[in-house]
Amino acid sequence: MRVYDIIAKKRDGLELSKEEIYFWVKGYTSGEIPDYQISALLMAIFLNGMSKRETIDLTMAMVESGNTLDLSEIDGIKADKHSTGGVGDKTTLVLCPLVASAGIIIAKMSGRGLGHTGGTVDKLESIPGFNTQMNVKQFLECVKRAGIAIVGQTENLVPADKKIYSLRDVTATVNSIPLIASSIMSKKIAAGCDGILLDVKVGSGAFMKELDKACELAREMVEIGVGLGKSVTAVISNMNQPLGNAVGNSLEVIEAIETLKGKGPEDLTELCLTLGSHLLKTVNKTKTLEEGRQILIEKLHTGKALEKFCEMVENQGGDTKVIWNYGLLPHANYSLDVIAEADGYVQHMNCEQIGIAALESGAGRITKDSIIDLGSGIMLHKKVGERVSKGDIIATVYTNDEEKLRDICRRVKSSYHIADESVPMTRLIYGVVDSQGIHKDFE
Amino acid sequence: MRVYDIIAKKRDGLELSKEEIYFWVKGYTSGEIPDYQISALLMAIFLNGMSKRETIDLTMAMVESGNTLDLSEIDGIKADKHSTGGVGDKTTLVLCPLVASAGIIIAKMSGRGLGHTGGTVDKLESIPGFNTQMNVKQFLECVKRAGIAIVGQTENLVPADKKIYSLRDVTATVNSIPLIASSIMSKKIAAGCDGILLDVKVGSGAFMKELDKACELAREMVEIGVGLGKSVTAVISNMNQPLGNAVGNSLEVIEAIETLKGKGPEDLTELCLTLGSHLLKTVNKTKTLEEGRQILIEKLHTGKALEKFCEMVENQGGDTKVIWNYGLLPHANYSLDVIAEADGYVQHMNCEQIGIAALESGAGRITKDSIIDLGSGIMLHKKVGERVSKGDIIATVYTNDEEKLRDICRRVKSSYHIADESVPMTRLIYGVVDSQGIHKDFE
Repeated sequence: MRVYDIIAKKRDGLELSKEEIYFWVKGYTSGEIPDYQISALLMAIFLNGMSKRETIDLTMAMVESGNTLDLSEIDGIKADKHSTGGVGDKTTLVLCPLVASAGIIIAKMSGRGLGHTGGTVDKLESIPGFNTQMNVKQFLECVKRAGIAIVGQTENLVPADKKIYSLRDVTATVNSIPLIASSIMSKKIAAGCDGILLDVKVGSGAFMKELDKACELAREMVEIGVGLGKSVTAVISNMNQPLGNAVGNSLEVIEAIETLKGKGPEDLTELCLTLGSHLLKTVNKTKTLEEGRQILIEKLHTGKALEKFCEMVENQGGDTKVIWNYGLLPHANYSLDVIAEADGYVQHMNCEQIGIAALESGAGRITKDSIIDLGSGIMLHKKVGERVSKGDIIATVYTNDEEKLRDICRRVKSSYHIADESVPMTRLIYGVVDSQGIHKDFE
Repeated sequence: MRVYDIIAKKRDGLELSKEEIYFWVKGYTSGEIPDYQISALLMAIFLNGMSKRETIDLTMAMVESGNTLDLSEIDGIKADKHSTGGVGDKTTLVLCPLVASAGIIIAKMSGRGLGHTGGTVDKLESIPGFNTQMNVKQFLECVKRAGIAIVGQTENLVPADKKIYSLRDVTATVNSIPLIASSIMSKKIAAGCDGILLDVKVGSGAFMKELDKACELAREMVEIGVGLGKSVTAVISNMNQPLGNAVGNSLEVIEAIETLKGKGPEDLTELCLTLGSHLLKTVNKTKTLEEGRQILIEKLHTGKALEKFCEMVENQGGDTKVIWNYGLLPHANYSLDVIAEADGYVQHMNCEQIGIAALESGAGRITKDSIIDLGSGIMLHKKVGERVSKGDIIATVYTNDEEKLRDICRRVKSSYHIADESVPMTRLIYGVVDSQGIHKDFE
């Protein structure tokens, strides 16, 4: 078998066999096939697509390129959750303890932030002492003790995906549905859970800007998961503005804890209840969404979800005192308010620009090697649909880089579009995709 | 400017600006842009195409990547000829002295053989002492002395094309009309002639297997040349069987000399007269094709063309005695005849298989570093449309590798398709493309 023939086949719009897909994934991971051949192949895949069967084979070829997690020694229903990434997306910090308090085992590996979107691992590291870096044995012990653990990716999990993703990143081949779907699902499959809940974000702050593309990605990921024997549900949610009000690592941890205390922003709370009830249903813990929602509301109200969060923090070496004393979290030395210059309503926001402003404040990584400033970020005091009067503080920027403060405020201000007409609040959920197909809440 | 954005633009089917094309060609030639980004771009070009304007800009960006030849100090009409490559294609050896004897200056750089097609430089090197490797100064002096010189490519001519071609060769992006057209035309433009005659081969022994693709390539090359102020004509000719009867370096030199003596195969003689009369017309040496043809026939019959060949050989250090004593040319030690097993007519031939058989005999290069056996090759005694009787010798294989002799004969035999029905002789010329458009001889 020659990689040249595989490139030519995909270039001509033909379907690659399972053997051909395994051949190039294996050869590329081992270094036998050079970058320049795979980048040509990736562009041919980008432009000519892949069949469902090819996408499933690519997913499994990547899974088998490294180690996989065996969770069979842990009793109970094991579930995982994945977000395609957004701005201010602290859902994992709330949702995972919430469903864990309802008896679902959460063994979750998360990513770090890159570009304008944040990462759960960075957020958790705001908590002094919290350990996200452990080997497989330590991770499994953590899960056994508390029924929940959230860590960075363990070693040699899906090495093919790492290498392919790095190449896609520099060859303009990232934004391909089959490549995104197989990349995400390979990591979920390798992580060994039975049930998977996907949060597919769409909007100006998400990687997917268009709703139909987000639906396509959701359907493709569900098909891969179901094709490989997993229970998978995808919720398609709005990312045209940040989720909640906080953007930045310790700011988001505070907001997540507030939400677990029942005092969080409405959109974040609602999204967690929606995702959570779908997750309980997809793993057959509950028969209906309503049943799951009632369980989760109760877990919030009785403090059981917050208790589970506390247990997780302690279990992973973090200082649980932060839960009642936010002053123990990192904070920025400088802050500046963004002031409204006219009366009106927030028409819409450029969510990606808010993400970039947070990045500039120090909350994110400009390159892979950047060191994050965990205390910096942005608090939004007004969101889409809200009334604003001239002179109102619409947002506050926090940073340790005093010189950048004004520029960041300018960027935040320019991402708000304020005008006279009143506009409705933003829709939070667009639809759901499960093994039965797509259920749209729009149209 | 970032190459990433250029890849994304072409990926999305948009037209690249002149500045963008120069940016990536220059960056790739200098080594600043890595292979893996250009291979993704080349695949995007392969699948999404290039406009006429982009193709002309790419051609000039490649021309300007290195040195160009200035022929202005040489008086007279300077013409060049290019064939897209075929099996047994010794046209240059006949055509160039022929038109030079009619007063056209020929300053021609040729290639070596690669794969199943031969190269003029290798063929000329069959002549003892013939020097094809010289610097620009020596080359121009050669042209001035004899009015004709045929050499290998001089140094640093179109380095971008060399680098891009090598990458296309391993990433399945060779067979793209704009990439082929700009690659060929960049070398012709850099070589500095006023008039260019293109011989676009189509058929089982050519790189272009389909007539409509060959027409498209011819039109694109003529458009590039005309767009850059050159007189260009392309003739589309048949390569469904080898040209003439000889395939292999010294075998083809003998056949070319025989043709210059007026005793060559009909198809080769006819092709040289057709190409030559088009060449004379495209450089305005003659007003009509018929006028040119009469001049060339006369040059053949009076021995002027052979005289010019002899002058060229002497001028480049070759032994002119070979013209009357073929025994001075390299020859193979072993030969074996291919025998017809049944009566019938040659229906068609797999011309590429004949090329591969010649390659295996030692006449071509399997890798770039292979050493050619100049004496080996194949003589075809029967061609398409000819009557064959059982026991007839249809071809003879010559090689110095005795062990391979039988296998090569088997390959030659299997490339002949002999059956009962009589079939017409093969059409030689399909059409002509010039600045006025396409003139088809078919349909």
